[in-house]
Order: sequence, then C-alpha cells, then structure tokens
Amino acid sequence: MRVICNGLDLADAVGKVIKAMSARSINPILECIKIKAEANTLTLTATDLELTIEKQINADVEIEGTLVVPGKFLNDYIKKMTDGQIEFSLSDRKLLTLRYLDAVGEIRCFNEDEFPQIKEVNNAESFKLQSCVLKDFINKIVFSVAVDEARPILKGCLFDVNGALGLITGVALDGYRLAKCTKPLISSTASSLTAVVPARSLIELHKLLDESETEVTVYKQRSGIMVSLGGTKVYTRLLDGDYLNYNQILPVEFSTEITLSRKHFEIALDRASLISRSDKNNLVKLDVRENYLTVSSESEIGKAEEKLSINMRGKEITLVFNVRYFIEALRVTDDEFLRIKFTRPESPCVITSAEENSEYLYLFLPIRVPG
Amino acid sequence: MRVICNGLDLADAVGKVIKAMSARSINPILECIKIKAEANTLTLTATDLELTIEKQINADVEIEGTLVVPGKFLNDYIKKMTDGQIEFSLSDRKLLTLRYLDAVGEIRCFNEDEFPQIKEVNNAESFKLQSCVLKDFINKIVFSVAVDEARPILKGCLFDVNGALGLITGVALDGYRLAKCTKPLISSTASSLTAVVPARSLIELHKLLDESETEVTVYKQRSGIMVSLGGTKVYTRLLDGDYLNYNQILPVEFSTEITLSRKHFEIALDRASLISRSDKNNLVKLDVRENYLTVSSESEIGKAEEKLSINMRGKEITLVFNVRYFIEALRVTDDEFLRIKFTRPESPCVITSAEENSEYLYLFLPIRVPG
Repeated sequence: MRVICNGLDLADAVGKVIKAMSARSINPILECIKIKAEANTLTLTATDLELTIEKQINADVEIEGTLVVPGKFLNDYIKKMTDGQIEFSLSDRKLLTLRYLDAVGEIRCFNEDEFPQIKEVNNAESFKLQSCVLKDFINKIVFSVAVDEARPILKGCLFDVNGALGLITGVALDGYRLAKCTKPLISSTASSLTAVVPARSLIELHKLLDESETEVTVYKQRSGIMVSLGGTKVYTRLLDGDYLNYNQILPVEFSTEITLSRKHFEIALDRASLISRSDKNNLVKLDVRENYLTVSSESEIGKAEEKLSINMRGKEITLVFNVRYFIEALRVTDDEFLRIKFTRPESPCVITSAEENSEYLYLFLPIRVPG
Repeated sequence: MRVICNGLDLADAVGKVIKAMSARSINPILECIKIKAEANTLTLTATDLELTIEKQINADVEIEGTLVVPGKFLNDYIKKMTDGQIEFSLSDRKLLTLRYLDAVGEIRCFNEDEFPQIKEVNNAESFKLQSCVLKDFINKIVFSVAVDEARPILKGCLFDVNGALGLITGVALDGYRLAKCTKPLISSTASSLTAVVPARSLIELHKLLDESETEVTVYKQRSGIMVSLGGTKVYTRLLDGDYLNYNQILPVEFSTEITLSRKHFEIALDRASLISRSDKNNLVKLDVRENYLTVSSESEIGKAEEKLSINMRGKEITLVFNVRYFIEALRVTDDEFLRIKFTRPESPCVITSAEENSEYLYLFLPIRVPG
C-alpha cells in the first residue's frame, strides 16, 4: 500500500471514525482503525461491534491495500497537521510509514484479517430527513433511556416511522419517565417502519450530525440501520425484542393544566436542586395554586422556595418529583412557555410546549411522600 | 446582620474567594466563606490556612454582623443571579435567609468563632509591578516546582527582588530541571527581599491576576506575603528554610549553541512524545548536526523522527532528555526563535529566547542512556 492524501482531510476522518472505537476493549483490534486504499479513495472504518463508523476521503492511491492501525495513536499523531500532503506506505513487515513535511513516523500495524467484517445494509427500506431535524430529534429523547440492565430493550430509543403522514416519532423511557418527540420526514420508502436503536449509537450519531438542512438517509434492515451523511456512514445494530406500547402509558384526562415561563422554572429548579442534592432522592415540591407555582426543597443544609407566576386551569394540586427529571427535559427544550398537566398527586404529569401541537412530550411519575 | 447588595458583585466575589477554600478538608469550617458586614462594605474571606483570599464589595448594611456559610453551596446558589439586588439576613438560630426576586433560600450557618483568624500583614516591605507582568512571571516558572515531599522548600518558587536594579527574579527547580524568570518592577521599598512562595498559592494568584497593566502591590513579612489587587487581597504563608543557591547550578561555558524555530520544535516534540509516552521515561533523542536537528523517539508501538533546520555554532552533539521537560517549557514561551546551549551529553542544556537578554531560562538534566 502506498497513498498520498491531504493531512487535514485525514485528520478529520480519523477524528470522526474513532468515535465508534471501544475506549478500552479486551480485544485490541477494536481500538484500531481499518484503512483501505482503493481506486483513489481511502475508506476508514472503526467499530465496537455494535456501532460502526465509516468515512471516505479522496486520495492519490499508488498501490492499493488495507491496513489496521491503533486508532488513538494515529489520531494523536496526525491531529497537529496543517494543510500539507501526507504519505502512507506499508512495508512487508506490517510497519506503516507516515511521511509529512520533514517528519517520518513508523507505526506497527495489526493483521487486517483480524478486523471484524461489517455487515452491509443492502436493499433496505429507507427514509430521509434533514440533518438538523435528526440531531434535535435524538437530543430531545436519548437522555431518558434506562441505564440499568433490567430490561435491555429500554436502553434504546424506539424509532416509529409513519410514511403516509411523513412523520417519525421517537420514544425513550426508563420506568419512571418517558420522552417522546415527533418530527417531519422529507420522504420514506416504507409506509410503516420501527426500530429500537441503542442509545450509545444515537449519542455518537448526534455528534456527527450538523445543524444544516442537509439530507440524511436512514436505511433499515432486520438487525441494523445505516445512516448516510455525506461521506460518512454510521451502522448500528438494533436491539431485539418488542418495545413497550407507550401509548397505553400516556394519560388522556387531566384535572389541572398550567402554563409558565420555561426559563424562570428552570432557574427555580436549579436552585431547588442545590438544596435537594444532599438527599439521594433529589426531591422538589410543586405547589400549584390559582396564580402561582411554588417550587421548594428542603434538606439538612437549608431550604429553597420560589414563587413563579402561572396561568392555571382546573384544581389546585401539590406533588413531589425527582428534580433531575425536570432539569434534564427543560435543558433540551427552548420554547418560551411550557404547559404542564396533572391528574392526581400520585399520577404522572405531562410536559409539552405551550404551543399547539407540541412536537415533544415528557411524562414523569411523581414520588409518593409519606404524610 | 441584614444587608442588601448587588447579586452580580456578590457572585463575582464568592467565585474569587472560594479558590482559597480546601476542596475536601477534615475540618468543614475550611470549606466555608466568612462574610463580614460593616460600614457599607461586605468582606468575604476563605482560607485553607496556607492561602487566604479576601474580597470586599459595596453593600447597603442595615445591621452589621458576621456569618460563616458553606462556600460551594453559596457559590452554586448565587451564580445564576442576574443584576438584581440580593438581601441577606441572619436569624438568631444561625439561619441565613437570602431573598432575591421571588426566591427565598435558607442556609444553615456555622459558628463564626470557629473560623480561623487570619494574620494581618502590617508595616511590611513591599514592591509593585504590573498585573500582566506578575501573571506571566508566575506562569513561566511555577510548573517546574518539585512535586514530591522529599525537600519541602522545592514545592515553592523563590522570589528574589533587587530594589536597586528594579527587578524580580523567580526560580523553581525539582532536581532535574530549573526554571528562572526576571521581570521589571514598578518600584520597591526594599533594596533586597527574598521569599519562597508555595506553588499552590501562586497557581491561585495567577488565576486572579488579569492581563492588564494595573498596579499590584506585594507586601512581605517574615512568615507571609500579601498581594493586593484592586478589592482583592491574597495572603499566603511562606515556606521555611533557605532556598538552593541556584546560581551555582547554571553552567557558564558551552560547547554547542543552536537557534531554531520554537513552533517547529514544539510540534516535533509533541509527535515524539506520542511514541515515547508508552515508555515511562518519555525519552526523546536530540541529534545536533551542522545544519539540522533530528528529534526522534522509539518504543514498541513505533518510531518518530523529524529533521528541523537550525543554526549551529560549536560541536555536533547527541543527547537524550525527558520530552515532558521541553514540552512544558515551550508551552509557556512565545518567542519565534529559541536558543539551546549544550556542553556534554551528560551535562544540562540551557534554553533561552534567541533574543539578547532573554527574560527566561530553562535548564534540563539529560538522561544517561546505556550504550
């Protein structure tokens, strides 16, 4: 193998694919990047067996070939490169020589046969949406997945595509809270399509997506999806099994409905969380009254209490929640006003935008406090 | 105690003084801030017994008094404040009530008698210099202090003031390397003054100094110094004992002298360090030849080698160093060209600016490599 390519292009590609690498794996090959030189293209691939990221860049390929090289080391070595040309050559002794200006580096390579084969996604159903839409869609739900191993399917987010309506709905839930978001698609070849995508893959995909309106295509087969964004392809395995019928969980009738400023609520919750943090349950009490909401918390270090102006319809109510659920949901929303609906002190509350047809919905179970 | 002050002023002051607080102390009083309200001024103080930071802000003092409150909690609570007014009141039950807009917080306070008494620095000798000068002075030497406990005096930096010349010289050394920097003073009341200042105090002082030409005064007594910058006062204990006679360590004759680009040298060292990092000694080899310097390193993961253009006077020479010493020194210098002087492969090298009268000097012992 002998290749010349642009140093900045290479540094960018390596920086992207290493996100799929296992940080600390039992198998050192999963901490490597595979680089394949063929027909004026370098294809870089890294995988942890669940998530695979592949990126292609243009290169002047003099001798075709494949090599497998420690990913973190290659990334550190080339990330200081400026816009010059870098030359790769692989000797018979599996020694990669990198030449760049007056610098020469030699890196010991791995055997390319040991690198895992990545299953291609062919003849798949697909849907298209804007990069910024998919990025925000992931951001609005992924933090609500379950972190414990009790029900593995809940460590992923449900993707539920309705081709006729041109909409994708995403859901994440952990038994105490639920996040749901619906976004418009550009198009879909499937009339209906579901997949449960591991949260870790979505977090890495989120980092690779930009805020532009560029079209992103998502291909789906039985066991995996492939997201194609520009020269980068992200493959991920899906989680097996049926996701919960989340519609059954969503309440339909409410006794109390309030509208309030998102920003004021967020600051009050932040301060309440400072007090409640010393307790393991992070409790915050919400007292809904005719014209105001009192947000309060109390622990051995002190007490916080603030009154917020609200619009209320229905009955006055008092509930106790884990303050972290509110803080995490409010962090990913940016509406000026929110709507919160309650039923009973022991029933979940539902948060949406105060606008009609909120694209997101968060549901939290309250905490039953004795007395 | 009952006080009203500006929320932003208070947040800024708390953020500054908590730097002196013990992060995790056996004594919880050292994780507190003392706030004294007197004559339209709030004085905030935090200390870890070695370092003390005190900051005054204007306030509307209705009832004078003193309180001692957990520092991290107060900082978190008030840091989201905007430009409004905040009201402090302390009840008989040692409960501090903070009122800010519609928010009310209550914090349990400590007994103020338990807060350590800070020794005042009176009738002291002093010198003045610009804030930006003192900031750069600290930055150029403090990283070279000893980290082990074998010789406690080496955990501080020597300050050596020459009033007649209007100069301050600072030195830090750890047995393998030495850093020295000389800067101009605005004035000095002492003809000669020395102090060994703990590195931890200098690191916090460095953060408080800004890049402006504002005058900073340093007062010195037998056991401590006090640095006065605007409304902030930093007190620190000094280290006991005599500092090494560092002038004896500095070589005066050299066999080889090279001039080279700082930036190119830094990049070559960075790449060499990636290879050598896997060895515990971080070895880098410098081969000085007539027109070029070869920077190389080798370990089980690979090899790096780069050639840099240099100007050389004297004899060709080859030495091996701990690459970290060079990287840390180059990081705090910003000259375009550096000068490095060598004597023998087993004798220290000296780095200065390539300019005449370099204000800094770094000395490193080479590593003797068998064979």
